Order: sequence, then structure tokens, then C-alpha cells
Amino acid sequence: MTQVENAKKNHITGLVRQVAKRDGVTCKYIMDGLKKGTIVIPANRLRKIKTPCAIGKGLHTKINANIGTSPYRGSIAQELKKLDICVKYYADTVMDLSTGKGLNRVREAILKESPLPVGTVPLYEIAVSRRERGSSFYNASSGEIFDVIEKQAREGVDFFTIHAGVTRKVISVLKKHRRIAGIVSRGGALIAEWMRKNKKENPLFENFGRVISIAKEYDITLSLGDGLRPGSVCDATDKPQIEELKILGRLARQARAEDVQVVVEGPGHVPIDQIEKNMKLQQKLCDNAPFYVLGPLVTDIAPGYDHISSVIGATLAGFHGADFLCYVTPAEHLSIPTLEDVKNGLIAYKIAAHSADIAKGIKGAIDWDRRISVLRRKRDWKGHISSSIDPEMAEKIHRRFRTESKDVCTMCGEYCPLKISEKM
Amino acid sequence: MTQVENAKKNHITGLVRQVAKRDGVTCKYIMDGLKKGTIVIPANRLRKIKTPCAIGKGLHTKINANIGTSPYRGSIAQELKKLDICVKYYADTVMDLSTGKGLNRVREAILKESPLPVGTVPLYEIAVSRRERGSSFYNASSGEIFDVIEKQAREGVDFFTIHAGVTRKVISVLKKHRRIAGIVSRGGALIAEWMRKNKKENPLFENFGRVISIAKEYDITLSLGDGLRPGSVCDATDKPQIEELKILGRLARQARAEDVQVVVEGPGHVPIDQIEKNMKLQQKLCDNAPFYVLGPLVTDIAPGYDHISSVIGATLAGFHGADFLCYVTPAEHLSIPTLEDVKNGLIAYKIAAHSADIAKGIKGAIDWDRRISVLRRKRDWKGHISSSIDPEMAEKIHRRFRTESKDVCTMCGEYCPLKISEKM
Repeated sequence: MTQVENAKKNHITGLVRQVAKRDGVTCKYIMDGLKKGTIVIPANRLRKIKTPCAIGKGLHTKINANIGTSPYRGSIAQELKKLDICVKYYADTVMDLSTGKGLNRVREAILKESPLPVGTVPLYEIAVSRRERGSSFYNASSGEIFDVIEKQAREGVDFFTIHAGVTRKVISVLKKHRRIAGIVSRGGALIAEWMRKNKKENPLFENFGRVISIAKEYDITLSLGDGLRPGSVCDATDKPQIEELKILGRLARQARAEDVQVVVEGPGHVPIDQIEKNMKLQQKLCDNAPFYVLGPLVTDIAPGYDHISSVIGATLAGFHGADFLCYVTPAEHLSIPTLEDVKNGLIAYKIAAHSADIAKGIKGAIDWDRRISVLRRKRDWKGHISSSIDPEMAEKIHRRFRTESKDVCTMCGEYCPLKISEKM
Repeated sequence: MTQVENAKKNHITGLVRQVAKRDGVTCKYIMDGLKKGTIVIPANRLRKIKTPCAIGKGLHTKINANIGTSPYRGSIAQELKKLDICVKYYADTVMDLSTGKGLNRVREAILKESPLPVGTVPLYEIAVSRRERGSSFYNASSGEIFDVIEKQAREGVDFFTIHAGVTRKVISVLKKHRRIAGIVSRGGALIAEWMRKNKKENPLFENFGRVISIAKEYDITLSLGDGLRPGSVCDATDKPQIEELKILGRLARQARAEDVQVVVEGPGHVPIDQIEKNMKLQQKLCDNAPFYVLGPLVTDIAPGYDHISSVIGATLAGFHGADFLCYVTPAEHLSIPTLEDVKNGLIAYKIAAHSADIAKGIKGAIDWDRRISVLRRKRDWKGHISSSIDPEMAEKIHRRFRTESKDVCTMCGEYCPLKISEKM
């Protein structure tokens, strides 16, 4: 039975107990969400996850970190180091987006080592393995695509990004619509080009029932990829994006009808005045299926700092209803991320998720802020630092210069407002 | 005549011409704003500013960078290096908040070298010079306070933060109200403690007419400091904050009545769900006087990353009506910032100001995004990097690893979605 089927029979599973405890909600709350499709628990029935999580309405906003090799960079050892950083710095899930040589061995290692749920984009395996054999993704048959999806399901992958919304109809909308940035999703581009070369409908869309039945067998959560997400704030909320979102809404309903868990992926690049609208639209078109957003970036001008330009959008998205944030690192648009980039992306996204939770009134979220603010007022710098989001970094900055006095920092010294006003 | 008096007589000054050109608006637009008090031009009549700016409604969101020594750190040479970074990385104004030894010489050097408007908090000079003489700020008379304000006015300071809103009444509200973080403004704490020790009303409030007449004589812009701004998201929008804001609104009207330019300072620490409300409240209580906000931070958990936690709030504040953003560096709450911290704070705040401008629909703001997005789609990485917010950083990240192919980066390599889909 899938988690949804169990919930519908009011059978409390061990997994439900674990994720309910972690989020500080009742098992009933989780199960009601599973039934309605507003909550998912990405967990392949074949994999034992040490720290599983639930994602969805009323829960803490969750964070995904993309790791994986590129054709030019990465190794199993390096990706496992990234995984360690993910575990240390607040990732709730990881996606292995490897496209380098031997990507199957990377995925195998990550699935073996990861205490977190693991997601993939199965299309990448086809693209890379065909390329390694001197062939091309575009020669793959529909059957081959499903074989790889099934193979990865058997390996224990917990959630799949499936680009089923890139249909002929949506592409015709895209073609009529002059976009600044075209297609910026790798999976979306691969499938669109496959369709163009083979003159066929998207096999993931045409055979979505088969996607559902694989997901059901392994209790995999489907993440409906937004292959046509805008890649520039100039393209935000445009027709191709909305047309695809409508299809994703239909596919989400189809999956739910089969008791398969589903989340919907969203943009990308959105100016802040359009973020609330985007969140509301997804909730409406997808019947409150959990929304998994990549950022969004609120401006395109900041390559090198896109963890910052995107975390602004992510916080606002989380506040207005996104449940699951895919981090963006400072290397986005420029290079594959280093270990340091992964860390910086994750810290930024923990700030986003936590700030959204405070604003949404998620129970207990603000307690962390209260604790740290009390320590700050008391000038208990040791406690202040050790309670902070990254004690090592806070300690490093605090120690950079010396003060004669222990109860002030080098910013204000004896003019510390907290010290001056303590008698009040 | 002050800028406001000139505007009222429809006399177009050279300064108005300069700032109108810079913002891409008409001189009339600037002068209407000056008349209504919704726009200010911080520029002491005695100082020649190379790149002056206007701040206010309908204009690009402006950025202030705080520099200056602390009792433990800093020198003239170091502060001038910070100034260079401010000029290079998008600061519109700087504030010299020095509290180290010989702060007068630091201010003198900054006023001499800065092509940007310069602000100060005159109270700091009194605190430091008294301390250097073995005395204390709390022994200063009201007369001494005004002497220093007048002295700095004669030196050419373009805008002053004046903590006139910390009144006996507001402090009584603060005392009744149990706050987590107390007083976190240095100026606010100094003046509150002065009042407690001297058992007197705030001299800046009591003699606000004298503040106005100095500002008028030198055409200095008054920045009404929020000495009781909350220092924790738990304290946001509390009674002491609002009581002080009401007083600042009254003082702003008083200054405007005398044709003196005035901006109002705001928080601080505000969860994202309260930011719009805070902006609207200020606009209402202060009759749309330009709003100058410090961040605000949207969570307290991130010392070491407070440029990020605050830039989220700053962007949203800018979108909802703040006109002037005071940057926060990664060192906030931990240490005086290094040169690198100043740069990182400024880049983050340029992202905020620009993103707010896109969302507010400031004319021409999105052109930068369009330009960079077109270069990105064309995989013109050289153009992409040189058009970005920090070309040096973008270049560094892009070059970190090598690719065989020149038209893709190491993130996706040959699986670059832009490359795959270019035929579409």
C-alpha cells in the first residue's frame, strides 16, 4: 500500500509517525494532508531513509539541494562531500542531477549514503548513457525512457522530476510567444528537442499512466517538472508558463486519483510583484498540491550572487504558499557549484524557509529568533554564536578583531546600545 | 534659499537638473516632490557633491552604506578604502558612523574625498570627544549638543540622523512594554541614557526648532532616527516603535513647514508578513516623507549572513514604498565590517534596490535584466559577465573550471538547455 492508501485506511505508518514528530504536528494532520494531496512524504518503499520529511501545507517549509556531477566536473568522492554539507546545513532532501560520466555510480553512492530523501531527473541518465555510447538522447524510444524510470525506481529513488507538461500544444504556445530567454530547463529542453526531432508527442505526457503506475508500485513522489519555466524576469508569468502549469494541474489530479503522491514544480525567475499571484495561481490550478519552486530569482543581473537574488523570491514564495524550496547557489548561470557554493546556497535557503515559517505563523518557528535575541540582549556572545545558523562563520567574524572588553563586539565597542541601555 | 524654497519659486537649480537626469525624470517631477516633501536631495549648500542624488517617491530606490571607525578598529586610510568600495559598488550615499579615536579627522577626510552625499550622527562626536577627555556623553549640555551639530553643518555634512523621537513619553511606553531586545540604536541608547541620568526631556525634541534652523541654514536633510527601533523580529511593530513613529511624523511636518528636507528612519527587524503594513503606516503617519529603512532583517537567526536576512526585507520594503535602503553587512551583530563585508553588503543591497524598482515599475529598471537575459540566451558569456552586477566575481566563478567548449559553462556542459533548444 502507498502512504496515501494507508492514510485513507487510517493506518498510521512508522513513516507518518516520524515525519509528524519532526514537524511537531499530529499523525492525523499528516494523514489528512496525504488524503487530500496537500502533503507528500518522498520515500521509495525500497529505501530506508534516516531522516524522512513531509512536505506541504501547514508544515515547515522544506529545502532541496541539487548536487551531482557535470560533464566537466565532479566525482563520487566530491558528490559525497556535497552530500555531507547538505546534511550539515539544513537540506531536507537532495537531488542528484549528475550528467557527468558514470552517473549511475554517483547515484548509487548517493542513494546508499544519503540519510535524506533523494530525487533525480531520469531523463539525464538516458542522455548521458546514450552519449557515452556515441548516440543521442533523441534516438531513445519511449520504451527506453520508461525502462530507465523503472530501473531508477527499483534502485530506491524517492522522488522523480517528470517533464510531462512539455506538450505539443504548450510548445506551439511557446513558439507564438516571443520569449527573451527561451527554454532554461535541461529536462524541458531535452524533451522538447526529442519531440521536434521525432515529430512525436511528449512520451511522458502520452503515457503518463505508466509514470503513475511505476510511482505507485514504489510509492515514489512525482515532481511535475516545469520544463518551460521562464528563465528571465522579463518572461515571468507568460503564456507558455501558465499553459504548462494548467497541464501540470491536470496531471496532478490524475496522479492523486491513483493515490500517488505528487508535487508541482514552479519558476524560476519572477519579479517580486508577481510572486504572490504565481503562488495563488498554482494553488488554484493544482488543487493545493505542494508547490516546489526554484528560487525564484527576482532579478537577472546578479550571476555570482544568485543565491541572494533568488532567496528573496524564495522567502516570499514560501510566505505565499510554496512548500518546498529548491536552493540556488552563487555559481548558478556560471559554473557547477563548489562545496562552498553548496554551503552558501543552503544557508541562504534556511534563512528563506525559516523566515517564511515565521511569517506564516508555523508553530514554534519564532522560538529560535526569541532565543537568539535574548542572548544578544544579554551580550552572551558565546551563546549568541553557538545558537546561530552557522556558528563556525559567526565565530570567525566575531574573533576577527580583538576587543579589550568581553561584553561588547568591535562594531560599537563601549558604545554598544545594549550595554548603554541595560539599566533601563 | 533651500532646495525646497527654490522649487516653490519654480527655480530650477543645477542640483535639480543633475539629479533629474540621473533618475531619468523631469526637473518638474523632482521639484514637485521637493515641494510636497516626498523627495529630498541631501546636499549641504557648502559642499560640492560630484554625484548627488534625489531620494523619494517614483525614483530609483537609493542605497546608503555605513562606514567609519569603531573604538577598536579603523583608520583614515581604511575608511577611505571603504569609501572607494562604496563608490564602485553602487552606494548612493555614505554615512560616517565613526566612534573611534580622532573621529573628526576621519569625517574631515571622508567629506573631502566623497563624491557621494555624506551623513553623520552628530551625537557620536560628543560621546567620543567627551570620552577622550575622560568625561562622558551624559555630562554634555544641550548647548554642547547643538554646538556640535552646527559645527558639523559648517563642515559640509549633507544629512544628519537626529534622534529626536526618543521622548520621555515614548520611553515610558517602552518601559511598560516588555521587549525582547531593548534598545539597539546607538544614538537612541545614548540619548535615552542621557535623559535618565539628567532627568530631562530629549534636548533634540525639546529644541527641535533649533535643529530645523541649522538644517535650513545649510540646506541639510534631516533623517529622523528611530532610536527605539525593534532589534528582534519578536519586537516588530510594537508600541514603542509606533509611538516613536508618530512623533517622527509630527517632527517631519514641522520641518517641512520650514522648507527643510526630511526623511524618516525605520526598522530594523520585521517578519515579512509585517513589512507592507510597516511601510503603509509610515506613509500615513509621516505624510509620505521618504522612508529610510535599515534592512529590515526578516529573522534574527543569521549573524554572519545578515546581509542576506536583511536584503529579503529590504527588497520587500522597497517594493512597498521605502525609498532609501541602509545596507547591512555580513558582520552585523558580530564585528566592525571589513572591506569585503562592505562590498558584500552593497552588492546585496543593489540586488534589493534594483529588484524593488523592477517590481514598482520604475521606468527603465528592467532593461538591465533584458539585456543580460538576451546575452545569456545567446551564450555570449563574455557579454553576460561584463554586464553583470559584479563582473570580477562572475568571471572568477565562470573560469574556476575549464570546459572544452566555449559556448557552455561547467554547470550543464553539452546539456545546456539554451544550446539544446536554440533550434526551436
